[in-house]
Amino acid sequence: MDYQYDQAVEVLRRTPATLSALLGGLPDAWTMSTAGPNTWSAYDTVGHLLHGEETDWIVRARVILEHGEKQPFDTFNRTAMFEQSQGRSLDQLLDAFAQARANNLETLRALRITPEKLTLTGAHPALGTVTLSQLLATWVAHDLNHIGQIVEVMSRQYAEAVGPWNAYLAILTRPILTE
Amino acid sequence: MDYQYDQAVEVLRRTPATLSALLGGLPDAWTMSTAGPNTWSAYDTVGHLLHGEETDWIVRARVILEHGEKQPFDTFNRTAMFEQSQGRSLDQLLDAFAQARANNLETLRALRITPEKLTLTGAHPALGTVTLSQLLATWVAHDLNHIGQIVEVMSRQYAEAVGPWNAYLAILTRPILTE
Repeated sequence: MDYQYDQAVEVLRRTPATLSALLGGLPDAWTMSTAGPNTWSAYDTVGHLLHGEETDWIVRARVILEHGEKQPFDTFNRTAMFEQSQGRSLDQLLDAFAQARANNLETLRALRITPEKLTLTGAHPALGTVTLSQLLATWVAHDLNHIGQIVEVMSRQYAEAVGPWNAYLAILTRPILTE
Repeated sequence: MDYQYDQAVEVLRRTPATLSALLGGLPDAWTMSTAGPNTWSAYDTVGHLLHGEETDWIVRARVILEHGEKQPFDTFNRTAMFEQSQGRSLDQLLDAFAQARANNLETLRALRITPEKLTLTGAHPALGTVTLSQLLATWVAHDLNHIGQIVEVMSRQYAEAVGPWNAYLAILTRPILTE
């Protein structure tokens, strides 16, 4: 389906509560474990989502609206959370993410992006020309991607414990989501 | 990691609230859409989880505890929800799932399954000999599998809308979870 503000916001505003319900107070055995090299723990992934709120989506939307393709986006550092999350608990990251998301949705609303503006273009440092509509749709899909990544890395902690049932649980056996 | 009651319950008891936060009140465009043949909508998947609460996990645990391998499990009908969910709204399914899960966790607690009992075995109609520990670990991994399936099928609604960003969103392009 096409990007639509109303439908997109319905997902974006639910992500903080979804993550808090899934992860808030959960034992470290579930939240701090990865599933091997280049995989992220739930803790890592929440930090990544927070970094996106601070430096990616709304920042890039403003660049498109104010400068178009004349000002390429800054590169998004996908692993910034490995430094930025240090010293913060998962519950602190969840709270910070919820606050940042709420602020960004308020900003998005205030930008009053008309259907005409959705076709405006920006310059992605690797992908080339992208539209504002594509950026905002990606914000949504990126949330869903990382919720999927969190439950996937959690499930892998039981990859052995389920025994022969792994034959029915593709989440345990297919190539894992990395970044 | 090995199955442990305390750790498993921490995930199992969070699933209803996670699904309600993610899906409660969400527009049908997100919750009723599949991503092609043999894929399930979020609505379908919640119905499947509810059916598992009613006929699978605790029922099979009791079979193991009371009969061991002498009484094979009944086959679990993975697509029963296509009939059973008819006429019920997603919010009704979410409520029924939350109630059934709470009841089942109360039953699980009351069964007081000791480490010794975890090694008891049952007969799965397709997989053969399985342990109680494997069954209970699968209950957890099955939740996570289907949360992953829900966000995956939702994300696919924006597979085109994200444009070139699909290169960074594996959830949109890798083989999709089916049943």
